Amino acid sequence: MGQRITTIGFDADDTLWHNERFFQMTQAHFTDLLKNYAEPDHLADRLLAAERRNLDHYGYGIKGFMLSMIETAIEVTDEKVPAPVIAEILAAGQEMLSHPIELLPHAIEAVEALTATHRIVLITKGDLLDQERKLALSGLGDHFDGVEIVSEKTPQVYTDIFARHGHGADAALMAGNSIRSDILPVLEAGGWAVHVPHDLTWELERADHPVNAPRFREVPDLGALPDLVARLED
Amino acid sequence: MGQRITTIGFDADDTLWHNERFFQMTQAHFTDLLKNYAEPDHLADRLLAAERRNLDHYGYGIKGFMLSMIETAIEVTDEKVPAPVIAEILAAGQEMLSHPIELLPHAIEAVEALTATHRIVLITKGDLLDQERKLALSGLGDHFDGVEIVSEKTPQVYTDIFARHGHGADAALMAGNSIRSDILPVLEAGGWAVHVPHDLTWELERADHPVNAPRFREVPDLGALPDLVARLED
Repeated sequence: MGQRITTIGFDADDTLWHNERFFQMTQAHFTDLLKNYAEPDHLADRLLAAERRNLDHYGYGIKGFMLSMIETAIEVTDEKVPAPVIAEILAAGQEMLSHPIELLPHAIEAVEALTATHRIVLITKGDLLDQERKLALSGLGDHFDGVEIVSEKTPQVYTDIFARHGHGADAALMAGNSIRSDILPVLEAGGWAVHVPHDLTWELERADHPVNAPRFREVPDLGALPDLVARLED
Repeated sequence: MGQRITTIGFDADDTLWHNERFFQMTQAHFTDLLKNYAEPDHLADRLLAAERRNLDHYGYGIKGFMLSMIETAIEVTDEKVPAPVIAEILAAGQEMLSHPIELLPHAIEAVEALTATHRIVLITKGDLLDQERKLALSGLGDHFDGVEIVSEKTPQVYTDIFARHGHGADAALMAGNSIRSDILPVLEAGGWAVHVPHDLTWELERADHPVNAPRFREVPDLGALPDLVARLED
């Protein structure tokens, strides 16, 4: 006999809709703006170092990314970056904050199928307002029984969320694209974790696959999720 | 006979601990940095206009304030602000993000007294990570039955929170310093609202007092709150 799974958690960015591509497009623009000051590879390294350094202060999301780009622009130009370049970075970030929502394949059908049979909860990091905006634009908001926007995805955070929305992590499953944030901490909390790979993954989200974990699964896209859940419970 | 009040909501910034003073200190530093380019009053107006313009994109909190200061610095200098000034704005903002917590008078005793008799919930706006940091540093975190960090304080938001943590807005009371965010929307949702004035209030939080609302009260500081709650229920 299978397991009882009462709650399904969905990651949002790059699981339900595109996100990283907007960061990469903006970073390409940033690289172009600074092409007279820094080689692309070097600039990418410096920006990543700034993002890593600032993560504890800024958390995840576009505003922190904007601030790290500005800091990096000042750094790589030895404090000579002209103000119009900073203005362009601000404009690029503001454009990101109003980018359209592009749902990933089978996101709607997976959410609609599973909301009929399970409690479903959106669990995401990032800027509060920006994530709410994207959820509203996605048209998926009404399907979710809960929305949890958190500053970090730790085992404790998942334990608390699945206790609040259902019967604990033991009876919960999380689906997402980030091994580091959506998979490893859920497995540690005792839940099921289903990896839905996305072709773009931010450097700071990368981690090794938990290949031997008994509650780890992988699907090619969200279209396969409802059947997988049914099989696990069968 | 009095009313049954099951849930008490507390605002955080400038209700439990100081906040606005750190913004004002940073703004004074910002004014000094740009003193060769703009008169203080004019600069303050331009910054406020930028904050207002960006609120729908950035939401509340320090990161948005940093981005609005940078935007204003570029604007008032006709795109001539030198990069070292931008670097100083970034440093000032990062300092704000690690400012110490200074509790307001009687905050601890009010929270301790009311948690013994009621469900208490922290309800605050701002950057997710920064608010969590402040709550952790405050030492008050364990007293709260719930923590709700929201992007905006609307009547609907209060209705939802008080339904989730208790028996609805009708049986709830909110205490806070902002008439606009902590008082008016709670009254509209049907709850009790207790104003705890703070001597510094951000321009965008100002609003007229709801003097005639039957469920509106005012106390000089949080020390008077437990007695007021007891009297309302008596």
